Order: sequence, then C-alpha cells, then structure tokens
Amino acid sequence: MSLKLTILGFNSAIPKKRSAPTAQLLEIANRHFLIDCGEGTQVQLRKAKAKFSKINHIFISHLHGDHVFGLIGLISTLQLLGKETPLYIFGPKGIQDFILNQLKHTQARCTFDIVFEELENKKTEKIFEDDKVEVHTIPLNHRIYTNGYLFKEKPKKRKLNIDAVKNHPEIQVCDYENLKCGKDFQSENGTTISNAELTLEPEKSFSYAFCSDTRFKPDIVPIIKNVDILYHEATFLSDLQEMADYTGHSTAKEAAMIAKEANAGKLILGHFSNRYKDLNVMLDEAKPIFENTILPTQLGVYEPEIHAIKMDIKT
Amino acid sequence: MSLKLTILGFNSAIPKKRSAPTAQLLEIANRHFLIDCGEGTQVQLRKAKAKFSKINHIFISHLHGDHVFGLIGLISTLQLLGKETPLYIFGPKGIQDFILNQLKHTQARCTFDIVFEELENKKTEKIFEDDKVEVHTIPLNHRIYTNGYLFKEKPKKRKLNIDAVKNHPEIQVCDYENLKCGKDFQSENGTTISNAELTLEPEKSFSYAFCSDTRFKPDIVPIIKNVDILYHEATFLSDLQEMADYTGHSTAKEAAMIAKEANAGKLILGHFSNRYKDLNVMLDEAKPIFENTILPTQLGVYEPEIHAIKMDIKT
Repeated sequence: MSLKLTILGFNSAIPKKRSAPTAQLLEIANRHFLIDCGEGTQVQLRKAKAKFSKINHIFISHLHGDHVFGLIGLISTLQLLGKETPLYIFGPKGIQDFILNQLKHTQARCTFDIVFEELENKKTEKIFEDDKVEVHTIPLNHRIYTNGYLFKEKPKKRKLNIDAVKNHPEIQVCDYENLKCGKDFQSENGTTISNAELTLEPEKSFSYAFCSDTRFKPDIVPIIKNVDILYHEATFLSDLQEMADYTGHSTAKEAAMIAKEANAGKLILGHFSNRYKDLNVMLDEAKPIFENTILPTQLGVYEPEIHAIKMDIKT
Repeated sequence: MSLKLTILGFNSAIPKKRSAPTAQLLEIANRHFLIDCGEGTQVQLRKAKAKFSKINHIFISHLHGDHVFGLIGLISTLQLLGKETPLYIFGPKGIQDFILNQLKHTQARCTFDIVFEELENKKTEKIFEDDKVEVHTIPLNHRIYTNGYLFKEKPKKRKLNIDAVKNHPEIQVCDYENLKCGKDFQSENGTTISNAELTLEPEKSFSYAFCSDTRFKPDIVPIIKNVDILYHEATFLSDLQEMADYTGHSTAKEAAMIAKEANAGKLILGHFSNRYKDLNVMLDEAKPIFENTILPTQLGVYEPEIHAIKMDIKT
C-alpha cells in the first residue's frame, strides 16, 4: 500500500499520560510527512519506530500549543542526530520567528537548513509538488489562522500487459515507458496498436485529508472530494454545539457530514475533549450519518480500504 | 520529612521512550519547586501525581532544550487549568523573551501573571526567600550561562519540652512563641528560667543542591557544604574526560569528588550520556570516592537520610 498513516497522538489541549497531543506521520509514495507536532511527538515517533532521517517535510496546521510545542524539540534532536538534508516546514505566518527565536536562545548548532514556507492565503493552494505527490492546503475556520492539508498521489503510470506486449515482437524495451504513459504503439511499418490493448489500468492513487482544528466548514468538501481517508476533528458531541461554535471546533455529527458530502472512503475522528471518557459516544453520533467512521488509537496505523472493497462501498 | 525530591527525568540531550529529559519536583517545607523542565515534563508531573496548582516557582538551570523545552507546554496547561496565582520563573537572561515570544505566536490567553526573574550574575546570590526556605544560585561552568540551585530550609524553631514547661505554672501559652525562638523565660518576680531547660533541639533543617549541567567546578563546594542531598550531573566516565571538558560536562568521578569535598549526605548522579546502557558503571566509578552515591530512577522519590544515620555516616 502506498499510503500509510500513523496516528502519533490525537488528544486535545492538555497532554495526558496515555494520549499525546496531535501529531501524525503520513507515508505516501515513500515520502515521510509529519503533520502537526504537539509536545512529545519525538518520543511518539520513537515508539512508532519511525526513521527520523526520512522526515524532511513537516506540515503544521496552526500555532496552538497542542499542535506545535513538540517542533522545537524534534528539530533539536534532528540536529543532535546529525541531519544534513534541508527540513521544510509549512505552517502559518509566524512559525519562522516562533522557531528561530527558540533556536537563538538555546544556542542550537544547526547542522542543516530549515526552509520555512509560511502560509497566509485564505484560499486553497498547492504548496508542495514533486514527481509523485501533491499537497494542497484546506483552509479551516478556527480561532486562529489554520489550514488542513490534502495529500494526494499523482496518477500512476499504466501497467504493461506483458502477455499482450510479447505478442508483438516489434515492441522493444525502450518503448515501454511510452506505453506506461498511455501512448499507442506506432510500428515502423505504420501500423498502430492501441495502448488499451497493451497496458492495464494503473494502480490507484491514494489521498489523505487532515482537517484539524476547525468549525463545521462545508466549503472544504470540493477540495477533499473522494478522498480515501479523512481525519476530521470531533472535539464535542452535538449537545455541545454552542461550545463547538464558540471554541472553533466541530462535533462528531459535523465531521460525519463532511465525510458524507465528500464521499470519503473512511473517516477517522480525533481531537476529543477530555470530558469524554468513553469515546464510543463519538461513533454513536457519527455512524448513522457516515458508516465507515472509526476512532483512532494511539500509534494506530491506517491504510485506505483495498480498491475493490472501497468501490463496493461507494457504489 | 520536610524535603522530598521526585526525579521526573534525568536523561541527557535526546528524550527517549523510557527516560525523560531533566526535570525535578522538590517539595521543601510544603513549597513545591520545579527544577528544570525538559520536553514532556507536564506528563511526568501527571505520572508523579503532582498537584499542578501548587507549583508557583520554577527554576531553570540553563536554556538548552533538554532542560527547558517543556516549559511553554506546562505554562499553557496551567492556563487551561485556570491557574490564577502568579508563576515565578527563575532562569538565565533571555528566558522571558524565549517564553513570551512563544505565548505571543500561540495567542495564549494568560489567566495568571508570569514573573520572570532573569539571572546573569556569575557569583552565587540569594534569589528567593520566605519565612521557611531560601534558594541560592550555584554558578556552574557549561557551554552557556548556567546555574545550579541550592534549596535550604531556614533553621526551625526549638520544640517545647512540655513536661518541663508544665513544672512552671507561671509560663503561659502566650509565652511559648518566645521560648520556641530561643529566649529564656523571665517571670514577673524577676527569676529567669533558661531556654535550654524548657525546650528541645529543633528538627533538622534540610537542604538540597541541584548541579547540572557543568564541568568539574570545585569552587562550588563552599556553597553546598554539608548539603543533605546533592544531585550532580555525570554525563561521562573518566575515560572520556576530554569529551567531558569539551562539551562542558562532568564525569562520575568528578561528581563524587564534589560530593566528598562538600561532605554531602547523599549523591544522586544523573544526565548520563546515551552511550551508557548499564548505568552501574557510573556507580563503579563514583562509589570508591563517595560511598553514598546512588543512581536515580524515573519518578523515583528521594529523602535525606534520617538524622541519626546521617550523623553516623559523617563521623
């Protein structure tokens, strides 16, 4: 599977003994993206047996402590580990000063470059792209400037139908790349063999959307339409709707409504208020609206449903 | 016992799964003093079942991350818990900007005053005093400006010898306070009863010295002379003396030499380099010099030896 999400922590506000604040490690197309970095994230990464050296991109949703207080510690540890490649940090305007001021006071010896990509756009934008992956912001509505992030694999190349290809000895190995890219085969004698005859559908490209913290914001639906996994905060139940609106959070019902409208493959709830001891109440509220809703577990690993099953669910 | 030390963490540099960075909770004469605050300290405090509301004074030795990165998270949690009384933070010059800049960017809502007491004196000084306790700095020698701290109870009042007092009906309850303060009793008819006849020795006043991080610095001995418990960093063994000097740390042997010269009651080592898997090698090096040396345990609680035993050790 080319997408694997590890929930390092999903607690809101105050770190507890057995539940770390928000942080996630997303492995997508062999990239290792860290999403949010509450206090203690580096220890959670160790528990998850993550490879620190592979983390070169960090995406911070907003500058509330439970999403960012672990960042300076992680940076310091990467320095002590001798990291040399640049570290790219995406986050709200201000994050550069927030980190650099701490590095200045602690007289940290930087062994690598930190490249800050400060965000202040209130509309969605593509902030990262390489040959396999794109990352887009999901503008959210919280008490301070906040973005969710949509991570999606680019369309993959078609797969060679080797048996079909072998029926045409005039097709050489150096032609394969054109076929994978969808081109028909043109022989030297002028005949054409259609690509559909020579190749199979590419493997599915997966996507993941992280939405925390935010009030109910249905205008994000077009951005995350058909996402394979949606993580959406659900700090409260609906009986505390006013509290949710006031504090800039969502209810489990609202998270489920977003997942349903977006036709998501799977919904993971998170960022629960500490008042809820039995989190099954969250499922009780969300599942009638969006059945494929799950609760996260600390250090839990999540992958998209396999394609066939997912297609069944969606039809 | 009027002095109780809880080691919240004693790891050096990089936080690990099972060993938190430096932080200690000292309960002395019913005060709750937090000493250093590495990342994750607030979770360690929870594990130690500490009462957050009683922490009004925090002493930071120096601004290296493994001693201070947990401070902003703890402050934020105190705010969320609705703390109202002032929080006094003692630490190197710069700590105020270090914290206030983080509070600014995270738009924290302060429910209480933070009073920063920034230190830059290179000589020992008394930085805190109330009716029962004094705190003095212990200037250390590290890569950046660093202080250890000496916490000591003031001399306690003498105890009434009730049987002796009752033999003198002319002594009234309102005279007791003068007796506890060491005064002789003067009766109205002019006779004097000596204080020694009416009172017993006061309970012992205890003291604790925290010394981390530092190179071997024997000129601190007069400051910590006869301290009941000494915590002294021992990052390395003597075979890495050059490394210790270069990085501004001590060896187990040097820590023991300080304890011996200071006539300490007990020595707790800490801040070990992660290269040492079996920490008993630290004891092997220190104990021949200072027998009453111990290794800390995570969340371990330490009290001074009871008086009689300690006196035996010292004679």
